[in-house]
Amino acid sequence: MRYLITFSYDGTEFYGYQKQPNLRTVEGEIEKALKFISGGEDIIIESSGRTDRGVHALNQKAHFDLNKDITLYKLKCALNTYTSNDIYIKNVEIVDSEFHSRYMVKEKTYIYKLNIGEYNPIERNYVFQYCKDLDIEKIMSESKYLIGEHDFSSFINKDEEHNSYVRNIYSIDISLNDNIIIFKFVGNGFLKYQIRNMVGALIECCTKNISIKKVLESKDRCSFGKIAPPEGLYLYDVKY
Amino acid sequence: MRYLITFSYDGTEFYGYQKQPNLRTVEGEIEKALKFISGGEDIIIESSGRTDRGVHALNQKAHFDLNKDITLYKLKCALNTYTSNDIYIKNVEIVDSEFHSRYMVKEKTYIYKLNIGEYNPIERNYVFQYCKDLDIEKIMSESKYLIGEHDFSSFINKDEEHNSYVRNIYSIDISLNDNIIIFKFVGNGFLKYQIRNMVGALIECCTKNISIKKVLESKDRCSFGKIAPPEGLYLYDVKY
Repeated sequence: MRYLITFSYDGTEFYGYQKQPNLRTVEGEIEKALKFISGGEDIIIESSGRTDRGVHALNQKAHFDLNKDITLYKLKCALNTYTSNDIYIKNVEIVDSEFHSRYMVKEKTYIYKLNIGEYNPIERNYVFQYCKDLDIEKIMSESKYLIGEHDFSSFINKDEEHNSYVRNIYSIDISLNDNIIIFKFVGNGFLKYQIRNMVGALIECCTKNISIKKVLESKDRCSFGKIAPPEGLYLYDVKY
Repeated sequence: MRYLITFSYDGTEFYGYQKQPNLRTVEGEIEKALKFISGGEDIIIESSGRTDRGVHALNQKAHFDLNKDITLYKLKCALNTYTSNDIYIKNVEIVDSEFHSRYMVKEKTYIYKLNIGEYNPIERNYVFQYCKDLDIEKIMSESKYLIGEHDFSSFINKDEEHNSYVRNIYSIDISLNDNIIIFKFVGNGFLKYQIRNMVGALIECCTKNISIKKVLESKDRCSFGKIAPPEGLYLYDVKY
């Protein structure tokens, strides 16, 4: 039986999403729980994509195959029993045996939170504490150049290799709430570090007067400086 | 010279507010920073009051005496340099040598956050994850009995001794935001565990049909069950 799970996690205390020997990762934690539940069998989970170390998720999705006579409700409870408090399994459903949580993604949404107000120790792991003022109108107008289908080579990290650097961003919404700029990116998929690099470049539109259009056209990661840190980033939704 | 500082902290990783030998506490951290700044002298800080282990603060206040030729701006920077990321010194000001941060408190405001929606791992240290529905109208109407000057003996923990159990609650505001009930308590002061016990009792108005009026009049801590956990509580403001 193939199952699809929807889950949230606080990335702060994990060594990233992806399973690694002897390190505490989100994938590793869930597979450990599934091994308990299956009675000792190794169950591999396939997620919609990895998140970097320190990045959070509100609705990550993953599928796995499990042969066990268990109700969906009991499976959800068991997964939440055997995972730690910084992971929560929100939903468990049965999917077709052909379903694939990564290959069949139609749309992904990420949120990025950037505090331009005073440093807040309570949110230090959940918001980028930039703590300086930024011209949000300029960020909004520059961000429009990122919408649509583009080669996003300028926004990967140097030496990252992908089959294709073309992705389609459907929308970017930017709002200000209590001194926190909230970016919402919706697209068919994103390259590794793409969102954090886009946010880093949008900040430099204000601080160094760079042009997003020029950065995008340059296809050169060196056309701006800093990547935004992981703690502000949330995988918000995945659609099939 | 007597200084008054305003500071925020994330209570999660401290062993409470109050200094204790060999344990990491908020008071201990700030005094350690002041010892560096003063060049080795032990500086004692006096706060508006302690917070329990796991409780947060957005605007805690404390005073101390320091004889050093340093600008307010440099003192603020130095304090933030020598304290950890889960404390932030928001403001430093000079006060009269007669000023006392605890004895002269006129008003204190606390906030309590209670999640009645789905468990959220990202907020697990910052909200009481109750995760069951509650009748907020009933909580609002029952809370009205707590407003005013009362003997709050019913809301301390057993065996706690105070000189007086009488306090004056000026207002209680309760609102619902995205499945989180936010309680705002304003008063001339609160007993140890009083707010967490009041929130615990207000929950039992819904779940066990207890009456706040009867609990208050009983002057007996055994008139209801559970204290609400510390992670939902924030010292929000202190006024002199």
